[in-house]
Amino acid sequence: MTHLRTRRRRTPSVGSARWPAAAVLAGACLLAMPTPPALHADEGMWTFNTPPLARLRQTHGIELSPAWLLHLQQASVRFNSGGSGAFVSADGLVLTNHHVGASSIQKLGDASHDYYRDGFAATTRENELRCHDLELNVLISIEDVTQRVTKAVTADMSADAAVAARRTVMAAIEQESLQATGLRSDVITLYQGGAYHLYRFKKYTDVRLVFAPEQQIAFFGGDADNFEFPRFDLDICFFRAYEDGRPARVPHHLAWARTPVKTDELVFVSGHPGHTDRGNTVAELVALRDRRIPVELRSLQRLESLLAAYSGEGPEERRQAMHELFAVQNARKNRQGVLAGLLDPRIFAGRRHTEETIRATATPQVAAAYRRIEQAQQDLDRIAPRYRLLEGAAAFNSHFFTTARTILRAVAERGKPNGERLREYRDSNRESLELQLFSERPLYDEFEVVKLADSLTLLAMELGGDDELVQKILAGLPPRDRAAQLVRGTRLGRRGGADAQLPDDRRPLYDGGAAAVAASQDPMLAIARLVDAESRSLRTQAEAAAEIKQQAHAELAQARFAREGDAAYPDATFTLRLSFGTVRGYEEEGRQVAPITDYAGLFARAAAKAGSPAFELPPRWTRLRPTLTGDKAFLATPLNFVSTADIIGGNSGSPVVNREAELVGVIFDGNIQSLSRGIVYDDAQGRAVSVDAAGVMAALEKVYETHDLVAEIRGQQ
Amino acid sequence: MTHLRTRRRRTPSVGSARWPAAAVLAGACLLAMPTPPALHADEGMWTFNTPPLARLRQTHGIELSPAWLLHLQQASVRFNSGGSGAFVSADGLVLTNHHVGASSIQKLGDASHDYYRDGFAATTRENELRCHDLELNVLISIEDVTQRVTKAVTADMSADAAVAARRTVMAAIEQESLQATGLRSDVITLYQGGAYHLYRFKKYTDVRLVFAPEQQIAFFGGDADNFEFPRFDLDICFFRAYEDGRPARVPHHLAWARTPVKTDELVFVSGHPGHTDRGNTVAELVALRDRRIPVELRSLQRLESLLAAYSGEGPEERRQAMHELFAVQNARKNRQGVLAGLLDPRIFAGRRHTEETIRATATPQVAAAYRRIEQAQQDLDRIAPRYRLLEGAAAFNSHFFTTARTILRAVAERGKPNGERLREYRDSNRESLELQLFSERPLYDEFEVVKLADSLTLLAMELGGDDELVQKILAGLPPRDRAAQLVRGTRLGRRGGADAQLPDDRRPLYDGGAAAVAASQDPMLAIARLVDAESRSLRTQAEAAAEIKQQAHAELAQARFAREGDAAYPDATFTLRLSFGTVRGYEEEGRQVAPITDYAGLFARAAAKAGSPAFELPPRWTRLRPTLTGDKAFLATPLNFVSTADIIGGNSGSPVVNREAELVGVIFDGNIQSLSRGIVYDDAQGRAVSVDAAGVMAALEKVYETHDLVAEIRGQQ
Repeated sequence: MTHLRTRRRRTPSVGSARWPAAAVLAGACLLAMPTPPALHADEGMWTFNTPPLARLRQTHGIELSPAWLLHLQQASVRFNSGGSGAFVSADGLVLTNHHVGASSIQKLGDASHDYYRDGFAATTRENELRCHDLELNVLISIEDVTQRVTKAVTADMSADAAVAARRTVMAAIEQESLQATGLRSDVITLYQGGAYHLYRFKKYTDVRLVFAPEQQIAFFGGDADNFEFPRFDLDICFFRAYEDGRPARVPHHLAWARTPVKTDELVFVSGHPGHTDRGNTVAELVALRDRRIPVELRSLQRLESLLAAYSGEGPEERRQAMHELFAVQNARKNRQGVLAGLLDPRIFAGRRHTEETIRATATPQVAAAYRRIEQAQQDLDRIAPRYRLLEGAAAFNSHFFTTARTILRAVAERGKPNGERLREYRDSNRESLELQLFSERPLYDEFEVVKLADSLTLLAMELGGDDELVQKILAGLPPRDRAAQLVRGTRLGRRGGADAQLPDDRRPLYDGGAAAVAASQDPMLAIARLVDAESRSLRTQAEAAAEIKQQAHAELAQARFAREGDAAYPDATFTLRLSFGTVRGYEEEGRQVAPITDYAGLFARAAAKAGSPAFELPPRWTRLRPTLTGDKAFLATPLNFVSTADIIGGNSGSPVVNREAELVGVIFDGNIQSLSRGIVYDDAQGRAVSVDAAGVMAALEKVYETHDLVAEIRGQQ
Repeated sequence: MTHLRTRRRRTPSVGSARWPAAAVLAGACLLAMPTPPALHADEGMWTFNTPPLARLRQTHGIELSPAWLLHLQQASVRFNSGGSGAFVSADGLVLTNHHVGASSIQKLGDASHDYYRDGFAATTRENELRCHDLELNVLISIEDVTQRVTKAVTADMSADAAVAARRTVMAAIEQESLQATGLRSDVITLYQGGAYHLYRFKKYTDVRLVFAPEQQIAFFGGDADNFEFPRFDLDICFFRAYEDGRPARVPHHLAWARTPVKTDELVFVSGHPGHTDRGNTVAELVALRDRRIPVELRSLQRLESLLAAYSGEGPEERRQAMHELFAVQNARKNRQGVLAGLLDPRIFAGRRHTEETIRATATPQVAAAYRRIEQAQQDLDRIAPRYRLLEGAAAFNSHFFTTARTILRAVAERGKPNGERLREYRDSNRESLELQLFSERPLYDEFEVVKLADSLTLLAMELGGDDELVQKILAGLPPRDRAAQLVRGTRLGRRGGADAQLPDDRRPLYDGGAAAVAASQDPMLAIARLVDAESRSLRTQAEAAAEIKQQAHAELAQARFAREGDAAYPDATFTLRLSFGTVRGYEEEGRQVAPITDYAGLFARAAAKAGSPAFELPPRWTRLRPTLTGDKAFLATPLNFVSTADIIGGNSGSPVVNREAELVGVIFDGNIQSLSRGIVYDDAQGRAVSVDAAGVMAALEKVYETHDLVAEIRGQQ
């Protein structure tokens, strides 16, 4: 499930080192020359301004028109919480995954409403529930600004000066664009620094929940079946975008397919893959394998233990923490899969061989670029532990701390020229930042205490109990007592439950500016202040190292464009990409895995796993079971299917369409064999997993009987 | 629950730095002299050959007779799997905790019998189930052998030579004793090296399961209520010791108390506390806080995640893994509690102050001893990561590996003189070792693969994917594939399920000796062989550092005996100790916590937590609920109680007796405030938690209706 959600990363990243099929077709197989592996037939996460039209013509015999592409592009929706979706009605109805909506759905609940567990169906539009902090983006246009960004950085600049110059020019481009178009404008770094494109988005910040099924059917099989196939999940939910208090009238939406997808059919995926490392050098992959992923895994296992323990304390604790627990379990299983790929000598040796072949014949400039990347990576690894604790806030796992830091910095950065600020405080991002900052989601003190105590303990473990900073932060108390003191003392958020009446100082401090912040006695603000100098300094160092890598990667990218031409696609950047693939099964441990599952399979699996909590059907499904299992048409309805499309985390909720751009499914997972796709695409066994659109329709009609929703999707309203 | 189980440690440990009440009473409050904290009234884990008779007379007005002590001593039972228990009938019936018996109970099950989850009650003695590898010990006598052990090590010896000399003399003492008495004979290191005592045990290796309740009532409240109070757990089970195929006739057993324990009543605990660090120096505590516990916590969180995921796959996987998951969660919560204590400046500052005061007036010899301990601790910390992976086998988490190593080493060590062998292979330990080695517990390949793959991944993460040893061990495969290859290929154990017919090579290899082992192609044996040289070398280094600490601690102990006389008790060593305390509530966050809970409280808590899996009552209890809740006498029966007795992990299952040495309860937990007792005893809030003997009797009579068992306990049979 959530493995296909993503979180946006601040550190710049870079493009693929794969080789074009064209070179191989041309027989470019000279001795002492690189022998590049061919691009797989269905490989690639292509930007919408450079779609692989020729490849599609050659391999699948299809000619995509500009209108077809524009329609798909503008019917696609980015969930800024970390996923994808699509408009499925002219009235702004959005289909995505349940696990993409989970965080928003959970935040809408309270002690007597658990929409995340029990589901939700609005009976009228008036009953749709407004989300606290959900922003949707629709990509309107792309403009290549590489020249302007690149020109701003000159060869004689220090890394720090280059960071500043690049930040300034990017902020200026974004601000100009925002003023000119009114659209959210982000300069996106492609090919790890090889290109810069300006993306303009239409933004929706009034988003309401329309329908969600119960968590047990959305995530049937839980952690056990996650990243596995065959699969039987109704991992979907519906939101609606509003404008000026009314349902948004959108120019493009996807029509539901008239017939379900078939084996061997060509499908397209339009979504927002979050991050891949296909263009990274071996030095960067080694750092990922031996340092970053181990640290991430430890952190996820720690959180998993913490959240499982808290969830077990009672039904209300479970309601508060369960969706986070699932998200963490999902991320953990994902990182384990990526690590398994990195530890697979067959995969790693391939990457190493490719790089060695390139470097063997590289120019001195390119060879030096590889070495600069390695050196900068070592610098990053050296500061990583403290960076993660302080700037990454791993030591302060509480929403209250995040708010405190945002207010402290927003007020400080406001006094600087736009181009000199930390990037997230640029003017063009202000609305999005404030949506998060002033979220009305309720926070629960005990849950915040538990998380903060755990992370303060982590800080002490990592730096040592006698460390000066640790002592200052703990202020003479054990972590649990200090966490309780900080959480109970802060006024930086809206509280749920019995504390709902406590005052909330976010707005007065943010609006009050430097004087108000300086005068505040808020204890969480004091912690944010205490670590801010070192935290900013670590960030500056990290950005300087990233800048060195970015410049070096730009040189590698030039060499690559010369080799590969337009057959290269950039690494994923949580921006809109077009993928395509074939509905196709695969072989696993000698068994043939069929590509499409159905509702009959769901009931069979529930029976086979009786007694395992993750495989329990929700009460409604258990109640209707006799009727549903007597309905042959229902039982035969496809529920999930796999395809070879090239996707990764962030693609969750991506629409899957057929040649006619009709909706045939929604991406919600990749199988376990696809998890090495962060490093290299492979279609032997790796598959994208979708909820079948036909299965969604059958559930809405026969299980949930949401007739208005069905009519709207069918365009009958 | 299992926090009170322990695992025996190989590394020698040492005694308390607390100060005697006597010194304070005498007004020994001179300037520039240590101002030692007094021993708390109920503090101490006393050996049975030095019981605190005078203290008990003074503080509780009780005179313990040698007969009283001998009776309690010989009615007490050690579970070598890591816990305590007591004889409760003349026919060798043993009462302990469910969580102490859990591992043995789980091993008795198969795909169609889940005794751990569902409970077990033998209807006749013939139906009692023989455990696969459970050994019980009863302490018969103690002999001080300090002089002989200490004389064997001379000042001019290198650490390595000292290790060898000490090992030789200890093995000789043990072997002589075994031959002379036929009793299991272990030389125990007390006061971290300050004294050596020979303990002789009567050993039972034919132990059968008589009765166990369902896991949900034994561990009601699960991880959430673990280490908490008020508490409502029926954490008990019964085994029977057999001799020559017949129930053992035992000379001492505890009679069930005629009346339940009352508030303010004095109670005694006779059990096997596993390990404390009260006598450790600050340098050792810092290492514990900043290095060892963080590593242990990470490892436990990793295992918790792994076992939870595996348990979630289906009912059979759950049966295989659930008891391990609970044990790991329990250990995790325990280590978090210990760490919280170490990070509590109030506790740590006290320890630091005490040590500084002592060192301020110490002789140069004592000051040097502190420095030697610090240096040796640094040496231990330096080798710890590789030690843990290889000699600690953290990289090879499979029962098959443990067996492979044991066979490899047993055969190699057999060729050496008894006194020169690794300690666990000494002749006097041979029977106990073979009981474990040839256990008929069934192993499940998929479970072993999952655990081994995870630990091979850990190895690669810790040493780096390109490390030479990692490459040799993985042999060109990713960890999961390599683990599958090793597990499916080995023949070193009995398999359960579909693989039950596979051959088992343990006996032929072990009996076949060096030639058979050398000729074996078993892949797990090959892995054990591959790492054995480095693993042994790490062990040698660790033992040398431990020896240096031991000698230095012996000097500190001499200084301490001079100060404290016989008011000092040694740190816990998983040998029999006498504790005592008072049944007494405490204050927590302003609330008064009453010391005794009852069955009415159990039903109330189940109702309050409805919907939380850990608080579900077992089917039998749900079925009987109307009857039980209508029975006022039953509802008022005490279920759990707390006392100030000084206990720690390993005390699980310890009998709690009144002044008449009648059984009033069974220790099964400590509250969360007691978890810092590894470092320092405190009775402000810290409490030992027991199942009330009256509650046990009521459950046997009214819920389980095990009339024969009740009659036997009452001596009516």
